[in-house]
Amino acid sequence: MKNFDLKLSNLDELFPSNFTQEQMAKAKTVFLKRLALNAHKFYNGKMQTVPKAPVPGFNWFNVWYTPGVSAVSTSIRAQNDASYELSNRGNLVAVLSDSTRVLGDGDCTPPGGLGVMEGKAFLMKYLGGVDAIALCVDSKDESGQNSPEKIIEFGKMAQHSFGAINLEDIAQPNCYKVLDDLTEMCDIPVWHDDAQGTACVTLAGLINALKLVDKKIDDVKIVYYGAGASNTSIARICNAAGADPQKSIMFDSKGALSINREDIKNDPRFYRKWELCQTTNPDCIENIEEAMQNADVLIALSRPGPDEVKKKWIASMAEKPIVFVCSNPIPEIYPYAAKEAGAYIVATGRGDFPNQVNNSLGFPGILKGALLVRARKITDNMAIAAAESLAKFAEDRGINPENITATMDEAGVFPHEAADVAMQAQKDGVARIKMSWQEAYDKADADIKHARKLIHALTDQEFISKPPQEIIEEAVKFTIDELSK
Amino acid sequence: MKNFDLKLSNLDELFPSNFTQEQMAKAKTVFLKRLALNAHKFYNGKMQTVPKAPVPGFNWFNVWYTPGVSAVSTSIRAQNDASYELSNRGNLVAVLSDSTRVLGDGDCTPPGGLGVMEGKAFLMKYLGGVDAIALCVDSKDESGQNSPEKIIEFGKMAQHSFGAINLEDIAQPNCYKVLDDLTEMCDIPVWHDDAQGTACVTLAGLINALKLVDKKIDDVKIVYYGAGASNTSIARICNAAGADPQKSIMFDSKGALSINREDIKNDPRFYRKWELCQTTNPDCIENIEEAMQNADVLIALSRPGPDEVKKKWIASMAEKPIVFVCSNPIPEIYPYAAKEAGAYIVATGRGDFPNQVNNSLGFPGILKGALLVRARKITDNMAIAAAESLAKFAEDRGINPENITATMDEAGVFPHEAADVAMQAQKDGVARIKMSWQEAYDKADADIKHARKLIHALTDQEFISKPPQEIIEEAVKFTIDELSK
Repeated sequence: MKNFDLKLSNLDELFPSNFTQEQMAKAKTVFLKRLALNAHKFYNGKMQTVPKAPVPGFNWFNVWYTPGVSAVSTSIRAQNDASYELSNRGNLVAVLSDSTRVLGDGDCTPPGGLGVMEGKAFLMKYLGGVDAIALCVDSKDESGQNSPEKIIEFGKMAQHSFGAINLEDIAQPNCYKVLDDLTEMCDIPVWHDDAQGTACVTLAGLINALKLVDKKIDDVKIVYYGAGASNTSIARICNAAGADPQKSIMFDSKGALSINREDIKNDPRFYRKWELCQTTNPDCIENIEEAMQNADVLIALSRPGPDEVKKKWIASMAEKPIVFVCSNPIPEIYPYAAKEAGAYIVATGRGDFPNQVNNSLGFPGILKGALLVRARKITDNMAIAAAESLAKFAEDRGINPENITATMDEAGVFPHEAADVAMQAQKDGVARIKMSWQEAYDKADADIKHARKLIHALTDQEFISKPPQEIIEEAVKFTIDELSK
Repeated sequence: MKNFDLKLSNLDELFPSNFTQEQMAKAKTVFLKRLALNAHKFYNGKMQTVPKAPVPGFNWFNVWYTPGVSAVSTSIRAQNDASYELSNRGNLVAVLSDSTRVLGDGDCTPPGGLGVMEGKAFLMKYLGGVDAIALCVDSKDESGQNSPEKIIEFGKMAQHSFGAINLEDIAQPNCYKVLDDLTEMCDIPVWHDDAQGTACVTLAGLINALKLVDKKIDDVKIVYYGAGASNTSIARICNAAGADPQKSIMFDSKGALSINREDIKNDPRFYRKWELCQTTNPDCIENIEEAMQNADVLIALSRPGPDEVKKKWIASMAEKPIVFVCSNPIPEIYPYAAKEAGAYIVATGRGDFPNQVNNSLGFPGILKGALLVRARKITDNMAIAAAESLAKFAEDRGINPENITATMDEAGVFPHEAADVAMQAQKDGVARIKMSWQEAYDKADADIKHARKLIHALTDQEFISKPPQEIIEEAVKFTIDELSK
């Protein structure tokens, strides 16, 4: 077997050079999954809790705990907002899920989402300098159905321990009600990352893609393929940012959305989809092939590919097609295939392809910005401000068709985003405290640098051990065996 | 002002030498509370979340998160117990409270408990090598009453994200139902630290105190002053460990417990207290002065002192009185006063007096032991095993009337306790996995050493900054001003 570095910086080199592009794409997926399993077993998960205050001597436990801490309890009782200053909640996010739609794997049972939610907490810390904890809960009611009310009640009860709630991987339609009700009931921001987060980073990518093809957002024809929480939110946010809903068509698993869709009209749980039925697709086109003709933009968030989106659909699009195929873990069509069909810009949800439309660019900065000003809500304006911040950051350092968005290794993007979001929170009247752009930027920047420096120091000093070469080798061997079956 | 070290190793030196003993005791409390407020403000709470797995390069986020993590989700779905190996839950405890009885401060409103619960998480990590998160929840129902059912439902929903639940500072009678129902419903240990934890460390202290006065547990007359969750649990566990309930008398705020107490009999929420009414105080003594005559042991857990327990009560006890006065933040009588009245051994809940009956000796080791074997429950036998482990550890290194228990700076006590508890869990059939005593000891010892080394490294390298001298000076000045009022 070839030597390779622990950074996994070039996965292609791990596999036989005679693999076709499709085999190579499949191999990467198989390898990353196998390595994930090996690595999670080796580390037993990936997050821990650590003090951020010192123990110069054991008498300090009389300060951090009884009897001294009594003054903290009574101060918070006298003024609940003092908890932001006297506890960790001001920088702490609950990543709350019922694991009913975990990435592309569907219902994974309550503990099944822990790997993803801990991953979110990992990213939150590394990219945004924010603390977070995975809360995968059982939302089944007495009849065995997953109930939105149960998650709502849980979030409402838990809100006093956190600065924000990040909802995640809750199947639709429950996710709509959970988001809307919790947002209404809680006095802390409730962020549905699958919906608002994906919308924010997709809009950021779209803004820059349109610059590259020299088209305007209010002129373009957009086809949305998939009508889950993500894509319906993307449509809503794109429209709020200037797209013309009359030029767009959205598809769900039963066909195109339009005023003819009695099934959606008659199911009040899908009120968000019905809004789109009424505002998009005025000609009531029903067929995806027809809809794709002369479309400028395809935004697919349907189900894992690679054969969900057909080459001929892309071939029928307008000049310089912009194609977002963002299902995880496998895009609706592989980028090489989309390009073969004529796509000018292809974005996916995957980090091992160019143009990753990556929620990780959004939530760490957005939540950090909201936390900095102790926001009570995250408004749509704040999500759009984040998208514009992301787009501008990438444009300023140069964009091209293979590089339309910032990537998450561009550390500089996050404090900008956090500061822009903190400013918008103050404009929208949802901030508990005031802060200048520079103050917000400096605090976010310091916290993020501190988090990274900390993690690297722990690794260098072997408080976090290096991944053993064997777990990588085993994953390579497993992958080659699988591909040769 | 005198110089003093940041370790706070001798608080007496901070205050004027002409302070009386009572002034000095009061000064320490005032000082520790003021310093706690200053220090929590300075650090903005005291816990953070930190990765325990590395990021050798950004491609590792394709392992820790999508697409690789998908294999973790589907593996846990296939076998829920795989979550113990593949996520952090196997070493993670939820510190769950509704903040309705926070230390001696009563109902502190939901966020009011955060300082205490974060403190618990701090101790859990530092002493037991266990990760923990504070969850202070709002348990009020639609009528505005704190409802045990709401906490039960919350814990039941959350159990899949944790290896154990530590209940804390829930007022009685709700705490009984919450503990009993959650223990029944959850497939992870539910530990009520105020009750079982206090019982465990009190029993440990009592075992060694009795050795020093050469009395046997089944011979002694015990008066329990206070009948909250802690003291009723202490009585139950002491009886399980050999004490004779017929020789004991318990008092609540309305008088002595006995079969005459119709008020307790008629309120089914107090079923635990009614059990004690039926088994203790056969002569139906009603008066505390009478009860205290010739008592061998007083265990007071009533309300903060210092004048709750009278000197004359202690003066009337049998030879070599053993006095536990464990209310926080201020004992029912100060130790110097109890000694003046003739007490031979005095224990309190405070770390700045000798013989601290300190829950921190119990829960980190007990929970670590339960987590090591992935226990489904913590049995009373496991709590008694922990008490015996604590008592034996202290006896082996030498005990005397001013030193009946281990102290929390004796790091060696915790891995012993964890291993003893892990063994009892296996005997009682509640362990998911098997482990030898030595394996359990080695793992606990390694995890605890790792946690301490980590915290000290973070402090030495200024990832955790030193407490500024000014916040200590301000607290000293504040205290002297207060005392001179």
